[in-house]
Amino acid sequence: MEFDLIRRYFQAPFSCLWQQHSQRWPAGANNDCSALQLHPNERLWTSTDTLVEGVHWFSGHCAYDVGWKALACNVSDLMACGAEPLGFVLALTLPSVLDDQLQTVFLQEFSAGLLACAQQYQCPLVGGDTTSGRTMQLGVVINITVFGVAPKAHCGFARDRAVVGDAVWVSGLPGLARLGLLCEYAWRGVLPDGLAQHADFLQALPAVVRQDALSALHQPRPPVALGLGLRGVANAALDLSDGLAGDLDHIARASQAHVVVQSADVLGLWRAAYPQWFESLEVNARNILLECSLVGGDDYQLCWTQPAYATYEPLPGVLVSCIGDIQALGGNKNYGVWLNNSEGVESAGGVNHPRSLSRMPYASYQHCV
Amino acid sequence: MEFDLIRRYFQAPFSCLWQQHSQRWPAGANNDCSALQLHPNERLWTSTDTLVEGVHWFSGHCAYDVGWKALACNVSDLMACGAEPLGFVLALTLPSVLDDQLQTVFLQEFSAGLLACAQQYQCPLVGGDTTSGRTMQLGVVINITVFGVAPKAHCGFARDRAVVGDAVWVSGLPGLARLGLLCEYAWRGVLPDGLAQHADFLQALPAVVRQDALSALHQPRPPVALGLGLRGVANAALDLSDGLAGDLDHIARASQAHVVVQSADVLGLWRAAYPQWFESLEVNARNILLECSLVGGDDYQLCWTQPAYATYEPLPGVLVSCIGDIQALGGNKNYGVWLNNSEGVESAGGVNHPRSLSRMPYASYQHCV
Repeated sequence: MEFDLIRRYFQAPFSCLWQQHSQRWPAGANNDCSALQLHPNERLWTSTDTLVEGVHWFSGHCAYDVGWKALACNVSDLMACGAEPLGFVLALTLPSVLDDQLQTVFLQEFSAGLLACAQQYQCPLVGGDTTSGRTMQLGVVINITVFGVAPKAHCGFARDRAVVGDAVWVSGLPGLARLGLLCEYAWRGVLPDGLAQHADFLQALPAVVRQDALSALHQPRPPVALGLGLRGVANAALDLSDGLAGDLDHIARASQAHVVVQSADVLGLWRAAYPQWFESLEVNARNILLECSLVGGDDYQLCWTQPAYATYEPLPGVLVSCIGDIQALGGNKNYGVWLNNSEGVESAGGVNHPRSLSRMPYASYQHCV
Repeated sequence: MEFDLIRRYFQAPFSCLWQQHSQRWPAGANNDCSALQLHPNERLWTSTDTLVEGVHWFSGHCAYDVGWKALACNVSDLMACGAEPLGFVLALTLPSVLDDQLQTVFLQEFSAGLLACAQQYQCPLVGGDTTSGRTMQLGVVINITVFGVAPKAHCGFARDRAVVGDAVWVSGLPGLARLGLLCEYAWRGVLPDGLAQHADFLQALPAVVRQDALSALHQPRPPVALGLGLRGVANAALDLSDGLAGDLDHIARASQAHVVVQSADVLGLWRAAYPQWFESLEVNARNILLECSLVGGDDYQLCWTQPAYATYEPLPGVLVSCIGDIQALGGNKNYGVWLNNSEGVESAGGVNHPRSLSRMPYASYQHCV
């Protein structure tokens, strides 16, 4: 929907004007980021994202996390272009219903979280705009536009450059943030009907797993240095924000390729992170983890394809793992993502994918309050 | 409020991090725009603004105008820095209540207006993000971040550089947009109580004045070329978005100066634009026009100070007028804006300034629907 909408009303009508300015803007409106050719040897990369209370975070959730995450998911877009963060501007819309005391508390916490993330990524706040919604109904709306820089020779990573034979890599533990979201649902008593059977599993989570999962959800840490290290190595890349299956599908369609993901390798990420706990899990529980990885969003980790022979300098503290490859599947199979599990290769579209979870993670909570 | 809030929670806490990156960001978060030093001879100027349905435009108003104005008021910020528009990114948040047909109509009109403005200013759309609010309560929220360029030697115009002896200039006819807003109120039957006595005046407006006023309100045309022409000429400058009195007050306080505005010169702008009509007006009607100019917002015209002797190349089609000067007033008068009218010099703070009008022009309408 989003892509179709952007193409129809914004990409197509504006393409002519954009082409007239392609010396300045060598990449168009078809990536998460746009590149500006200003310096003879450098390109400025920029990305914008809006976060809405009750849609992108639980109303009433700690504003420190909101501030951190608002910047982190923008920085994640830069990571996916291989650009180094330079700074950001903030446009904040506050609802008029906030009384002065609530507003003070929100702003104190929000700006502290934002600052902590800005320091983490050395990405200063350089301007902005604050608007009061002055309407009873509106929640907090946050827009951040982030700026990054990369050498001119680096074209950013596109989605359409994966080729047969590429290995598929991910950073971190995709799905951990989704597990965190399930914990939030369970804790708040708003686990969607279709997921009621997850309650016991969530109840029994070890404290360390629960804590890691909540951290991944509320304070994502995109490994920006990895994006820089992959310049000249990765073919296609993007940041994981819609879940492995959905994001890899973007690469598969854009590159006209089949992405084959090994279920065992995805589960291996969980096993490596929490070996003792993982070994204690039954098949059903492991399937929940696999589902979190495949259809969960909000990871803000890097996912990329690279030639099987390619190597690069490993980064301390940044976990990377190979989970599949790009294959030339026989037959008339549509380009897409395929899951290789114990029962053979099946379309990842067949993965249990409850719409309520994948499309509007915070909405069902909001409707309960 | 807005300035205090930005200073307290965002400017002060982030100043240290910003200073560490001041090679890249020579101007801080204290202007409408931020400057990025990327190219050795050029600076990138950037500005961000959020527009909220029912706050910045009437709910249900023609989306073509909304698209035009969303970009125009961002371009206006570039004008106030003397920067040339390069491109913009759009983050659009749509409410879930819009059914598909309404959404299609909105997007068609909105993108057409946006494109027309982009063509007018040769400012292509280069990226963006579209979010569905997925909540019943939320209106359309538009965020635009615009990019412009200027030579490195041009530091932008600041508010704190007006000096005694400077002449105060404006472009266009400040107050015309506010007259348009009064027409909208009257037409919609929501003229605030304090302004009921304006009804007859508005009813009797000549069609051409009404049409110009509505155009100024809904399709502002900031004279960007004037901003470029004033590089090296203007001392202090800003774009008029909060009304002459309020905006000049920013210059007065930042420059620690007294700005003296000649009422006769402000009224002279109206006389010059509509001579026959103006001569037919009684004192009360002329006072309404003066009030529109002083406390009206949404002009997106340029206001600047320059040495009395300074000259520059006039631009065809861009009306500019001198309306006052910077003076060293005797006594212990606070820095601010002073109005010189037939009764002598009085503080512009004394101008009739109904809060409902100056602070939330579209809200009272929204609450009626």
